Amino acid sequence: MKRLLDRDSLRALARGCAVLGAGGGGDPYLGLLQALQATGDFGPVSLIDVDELPDDALIMPCGGIGAPTVGIEKIENGDEGNRLRDHLESVTGQQVAALMAAEIGGGNGLLPVAWAARLGLPLVDADGMGRAFPEVPQVTMHLAGISPSPAVMTDERGNVLVVRAISGHWMERLERTAAVEFGGAASATEFSLTAAQAREATVRNSVSLAITIGEAIENSEENPVAALIAKIGAFGLVTGKVTDVERRTTRGFVRGSVVVEGFRADAGRQIRLELQNENLVALEQGQVRASVPDLISVLDSETADAIATERIRYGQRVTVIAFGCDPVWRTERGVALTGPRAFGYDFDYVPVEELAGAVT
Amino acid sequence: MKRLLDRDSLRALARGCAVLGAGGGGDPYLGLLQALQATGDFGPVSLIDVDELPDDALIMPCGGIGAPTVGIEKIENGDEGNRLRDHLESVTGQQVAALMAAEIGGGNGLLPVAWAARLGLPLVDADGMGRAFPEVPQVTMHLAGISPSPAVMTDERGNVLVVRAISGHWMERLERTAAVEFGGAASATEFSLTAAQAREATVRNSVSLAITIGEAIENSEENPVAALIAKIGAFGLVTGKVTDVERRTTRGFVRGSVVVEGFRADAGRQIRLELQNENLVALEQGQVRASVPDLISVLDSETADAIATERIRYGQRVTVIAFGCDPVWRTERGVALTGPRAFGYDFDYVPVEELAGAVT
Repeated sequence: MKRLLDRDSLRALARGCAVLGAGGGGDPYLGLLQALQATGDFGPVSLIDVDELPDDALIMPCGGIGAPTVGIEKIENGDEGNRLRDHLESVTGQQVAALMAAEIGGGNGLLPVAWAARLGLPLVDADGMGRAFPEVPQVTMHLAGISPSPAVMTDERGNVLVVRAISGHWMERLERTAAVEFGGAASATEFSLTAAQAREATVRNSVSLAITIGEAIENSEENPVAALIAKIGAFGLVTGKVTDVERRTTRGFVRGSVVVEGFRADAGRQIRLELQNENLVALEQGQVRASVPDLISVLDSETADAIATERIRYGQRVTVIAFGCDPVWRTERGVALTGPRAFGYDFDYVPVEELAGAVT
Repeated sequence: MKRLLDRDSLRALARGCAVLGAGGGGDPYLGLLQALQATGDFGPVSLIDVDELPDDALIMPCGGIGAPTVGIEKIENGDEGNRLRDHLESVTGQQVAALMAAEIGGGNGLLPVAWAARLGLPLVDADGMGRAFPEVPQVTMHLAGISPSPAVMTDERGNVLVVRAISGHWMERLERTAAVEFGGAASATEFSLTAAQAREATVRNSVSLAITIGEAIENSEENPVAALIAKIGAFGLVTGKVTDVERRTTRGFVRGSVVVEGFRADAGRQIRLELQNENLVALEQGQVRASVPDLISVLDSETADAIATERIRYGQRVTVIAFGCDPVWRTERGVALTGPRAFGYDFDYVPVEELAGAVT
């Protein structure tokens, strides 16, 4: 066991997950409340390394699916993790040994803690993204050739779907349409995998990384934003005020854009973010300053708390940062799955450090 | 065994299913082609009575779900029945002993024959409606308190969903939304039941009835429409010409209306049919002449072949008939599930024989 996820580490985890969410992954505050409640009721969760599990141990990646704008109003009832586990075990005939966050970003980094507490299972220190992405097959397990099937979905009412799709694309279509029918959000597991597979096919140590990020913010003496930027090697794109938010909930996603106008040292500058659950692209005067799969996060300028796309609103004082994604997303297949063209943009991915270097 | 479903009986069955479809249930001609092909390749299917099965034998009700307008262009690939059977057996842990048409009406009375032939299984002489209805829980099994779960859905590509819904209403919502995502139509099984349950919870002998109806049409010497009306005790509402068709495919259903203007003895009269996959209501000058759950079918005036809602078009010479549904639908709960108010109409159900008696 690496550590017990106690109340302090959960608070740090929530802050780190918010930063790694790149605006998405669901509300970390609601995720934190659920994790605190569940660990209070059932005891703290053990964070383990995938190397601690035997090769054939079954790991259940899990989290919420749908539009975060819905997720903040339509709350889980608590039993979702049990239902996902029970049905996954029933259809695979195997026992689940540990849970894993499908995506470490946002509330989806915390929900698996709440579910693990209720199930008395450990959480592995890994996830399938190292951030948050909007679509089901945008995970490292998909890159590694692991099947998304059988997936299990459930809602707060108790409906359960088991999905065996012919492709990641069809898994996304079928789960998304069910999430919309459930009211815009649901809980799900896909890409269940063995510990042997997880050693190669996940982003390792991402729970620990999120906690470290959260602690860096909490422990900063004077300037939390500067401390965070230094900690993760981020690039500050602009510090200013949110002057426009265009946001709609459609087909199980949040889509829209956010404009931040710089002030003080950044006076006269303007950054426009385009989003689909997550912040996808940062533009300045039509030029790309950062894009998926690199992470773009909007921080409260005072506290460095990352603000999710569904919580952004006019007048907030923010610092927009960008930082590099896990190297797996910078491979040719990684970029094809999660780069700008995967979201319909007609430009190639350029790593954020090159884009930042080009701006003076 | 009651009989072997040979080529002649399948042709009669197709005609009878068309009449019992009340305009819906999918295209009987495509269903017939599939049944002829499968029985040609794999041998004829045994039609058995549910009394021939042991009490605990598992019966799989099955058929197509979605909009018939889509079903005539997006054809099954043939393997659907195998996938439904395999996954139903896998999730129930029981072996399927026989198939049953979920609804005898339209192509859905014939698809189970094609699937039974491929599986080498018998077909029980019963169904869940005695006609066709548009929505998943509108079956006698639902009235009898049998759970719709686990349902299995599949498409021609090979995607598979297992659905466990908290109610018939949620089963309808989840299956319908998946059918729409599959392109508007899919194949499914719900309400699997034992032979002991089927003895009480189905419409018995409906396959035989459909064959008898088809034979009555085929064997009529002079006037097939008159022969059919006499055989089933139907009421002729109007004989005339289709002068207007308004039809749209939306949310997994066909909806719209059809106007038939009488000629010869019926000159000056006009019947308007309103439809949701099936013909729901027949109106004459704003007065209800027949409504669900009674059956309203549109027959070719020359051949007495029933014309499905997706095949109706301007200029067809037709006779509109109406006849009484199975008595189970005339109970209080039956009317609540399938009567006019279940489809949003603000009037009470009156049996067709009373309505017909009121017209002189």
